[in-house]
Amino acid sequence: MNLTHALTQTLRAIDVIRKKRDGGELSAEEIDYLVNSYTRGDIPDYQVSAWLMAVVLRGMTRGETAALTDAMLHSGEVLDLSSLTARKVDKHSTGGVGDKTSLVLAPLAAAAGIAVPMISGRGLGHTGGTLDKLEAIPGFNVNLSVDQFRRVLEVCGCAMIGQTAQIAPADRKLYALRDVTGTVESPYLICASIMSKKLAEGIDALVLDVKTGSGAFMKNDEDATFLAELMVETGERMGKQVVALITDMDQPLGCMIGNALEVVEVIEVLRGKGPEDLRRLCIELAGWMLHLGGVAASVEEGEKQSEKLIASGKALDRFRQMVELQGGDPRAIDDPKKLPLAQHTMTVSSRGSGSLASLQCEQVGTACVILGGGRERKEDSVDPAVGIVLHKKVGDRVSAGEPLATIHYNAETRADRARQMLEESYRISDSSPNEKRPLIHRVIGRPGDKN
Amino acid sequence: MNLTHALTQTLRAIDVIRKKRDGGELSAEEIDYLVNSYTRGDIPDYQVSAWLMAVVLRGMTRGETAALTDAMLHSGEVLDLSSLTARKVDKHSTGGVGDKTSLVLAPLAAAAGIAVPMISGRGLGHTGGTLDKLEAIPGFNVNLSVDQFRRVLEVCGCAMIGQTAQIAPADRKLYALRDVTGTVESPYLICASIMSKKLAEGIDALVLDVKTGSGAFMKNDEDATFLAELMVETGERMGKQVVALITDMDQPLGCMIGNALEVVEVIEVLRGKGPEDLRRLCIELAGWMLHLGGVAASVEEGEKQSEKLIASGKALDRFRQMVELQGGDPRAIDDPKKLPLAQHTMTVSSRGSGSLASLQCEQVGTACVILGGGRERKEDSVDPAVGIVLHKKVGDRVSAGEPLATIHYNAETRADRARQMLEESYRISDSSPNEKRPLIHRVIGRPGDKN
Repeated sequence: MNLTHALTQTLRAIDVIRKKRDGGELSAEEIDYLVNSYTRGDIPDYQVSAWLMAVVLRGMTRGETAALTDAMLHSGEVLDLSSLTARKVDKHSTGGVGDKTSLVLAPLAAAAGIAVPMISGRGLGHTGGTLDKLEAIPGFNVNLSVDQFRRVLEVCGCAMIGQTAQIAPADRKLYALRDVTGTVESPYLICASIMSKKLAEGIDALVLDVKTGSGAFMKNDEDATFLAELMVETGERMGKQVVALITDMDQPLGCMIGNALEVVEVIEVLRGKGPEDLRRLCIELAGWMLHLGGVAASVEEGEKQSEKLIASGKALDRFRQMVELQGGDPRAIDDPKKLPLAQHTMTVSSRGSGSLASLQCEQVGTACVILGGGRERKEDSVDPAVGIVLHKKVGDRVSAGEPLATIHYNAETRADRARQMLEESYRISDSSPNEKRPLIHRVIGRPGDKN
Repeated sequence: MNLTHALTQTLRAIDVIRKKRDGGELSAEEIDYLVNSYTRGDIPDYQVSAWLMAVVLRGMTRGETAALTDAMLHSGEVLDLSSLTARKVDKHSTGGVGDKTSLVLAPLAAAAGIAVPMISGRGLGHTGGTLDKLEAIPGFNVNLSVDQFRRVLEVCGCAMIGQTAQIAPADRKLYALRDVTGTVESPYLICASIMSKKLAEGIDALVLDVKTGSGAFMKNDEDATFLAELMVETGERMGKQVVALITDMDQPLGCMIGNALEVVEVIEVLRGKGPEDLRRLCIELAGWMLHLGGVAASVEEGEKQSEKLIASGKALDRFRQMVELQGGDPRAIDDPKKLPLAQHTMTVSSRGSGSLASLQCEQVGTACVILGGGRERKEDSVDPAVGIVLHKKVGDRVSAGEPLATIHYNAETRADRARQMLEESYRISDSSPNEKRPLIHRVIGRPGDKN
């Protein structure tokens, strides 16, 4: 019997912490109390960080995860997009290196008649961020008000912005605390963070791209699958159609890494060109978005429609339109030289001959951060022009002296460090390559059952 | 590879938190960094509370526990009592109900020629505190400076004070944080907290009284034994002789609970009277103190000496001397009516006949807190006069209507609540009593090997 508790009987942070510490299941009321009191500033950081660590080490039930997501979602505004007649579908990726699919998918799905209200993030650690990529387009404004966001959506069917102060403020405050207290790495907390923000967009359905491999936050399939299942179930509990694709991030996606370079590659894909893996993943994800958005009877049908929208130029037109509506220079879409270019390039050549056995994906991402293309600290600014272009991908034949990659840089010392890191990340093997890892490992969720 | 860490390579709180979160063993350097930076205010509460929760759930190795104790010990002053020629031996109890042995032991061991530099605490939860008991003696000052403390010790061989700001400031700060973050209940943290403060007294040896049972913090023998072994090993690693007695706290110790009442019972024991269990435990603990203090060849020899020092009145004389040196009224020792007395008494009578099967010890302690004899909140003041006198102990025969206890109170509403709680804590059984729980369950540590 706890003396003070016996004498008071009101909800207290310390009791919620202790309950989770001892492996108990928190009620929705207890979770709600904690999240809302913290967001209002009525519970101090030090109590919440102790609770977060208890969650990391004790885990949460599906019910607790949904309750946490719900509490965070309702800590702020939930967008009312009921003025849009189209079904609203978004896509979210857990982050990787060279993952620029969002920039292809938003205009592509919009061109198919779906509304895509996309609220994205910035680069984190070794991974790139959608907002940083969009800002490589001269003039592009990711800081629209909710009204401006709604207007762009109404006109072109897609809009891409950063998180606003009104959306899930609990997540903003909790994430900042998790970042400095070693409590980021919990599937339950990651799920609630992602799902609360995405559901605050007022969407009907969501396609999740959960990355796995050396360049992903989830290094192995089991962790990725666990998180995917958690997010799908949490979304379903909240009445949304959710599907998750577990996709490969054991090497960078596509060939270009770096903000302006990735915009170049996005434009290539929207022109029906670009590297095969990036193209295929975009088409697959778009197929799911179109299917969940109700404009394609099946995923395969959605994929076919997507191919057509690219071939006809309609997807690219939609991208150009969105860029213009958000203040960007649409000429950069047709003439990529108008995008920021690095002053110098440097080639990384192969030392041996054979086949490219592996490419340490996180190191490639880190090399790009070192060039200035990402942030070492949250307050750092990003150089949009720098980056890396890969000439070989895993499984490709390589001869000694042949170029493996080109570094685009503005500062020589950074380039030297990046080259060193890049060189260390390649493994060339004499033997014939192992079987290729599949691009799409698994699909989680059966949203088709709900149609 | 952690990007920021790879680029900085300095010790960071976040990395120490993550390492413990993931079940790693922290180095003494990492623990030292965390404790010292926190004490200086260079690491915020929210990082330390996350680390504390990780320690609660992941545990610590013996090496980590010793390193934490050492860092906390050296966060402040370690008393230099080298001017005292006697060996310095202290006793520490993990806390219970009616546990007033310290007040008997300090003068008793001092009368045997040992120096007892005792730094004690206040009541916590349902348990009483040595300082609160001492302050029931009119004028007694527990807030001596280190110099005053040393002088009292030099004159009479024992002195009893509260924690000073100079002693283990890290513990003071960490304990306040643990108290509000659900991180009190960890044997590793409890061990480091107790041992850092005790070793800061500059002692040569320590006798630990680890309580077990319904009135103790450790409700079962396994937890008590684990904590005892941890403290003994930690003390030994730091070059001290340490022994731990696991003793019973399944019912209150002695018959009186409440600050002034407990002083009365202490005086009875020092006069060779008092209840058998309290007397026996005092003699046993004193036997160990005298043995470790080098004035008795064996524990048994120490017990015999202790009996004689009580019979001769020398132990009581030493208590009277200490009281006077610390500003207390020595007449209260000879005339207990000079101690604060409650205005009213109320009898709790037995409803049935049989034998007293059990007495919920924590509830008895809580009943005393409700009377005003302990603190519901840290800032509450304590009423020294109130308390409970037990007329029956577990195993005693009881007839219906016979008095079980007398409540000493000053406020009627409090008395009614306390009586209700007290009544609920008794279990009278028709059957003959179970075998009595032993007073001393086990002895941990073999300090004799070191003599």
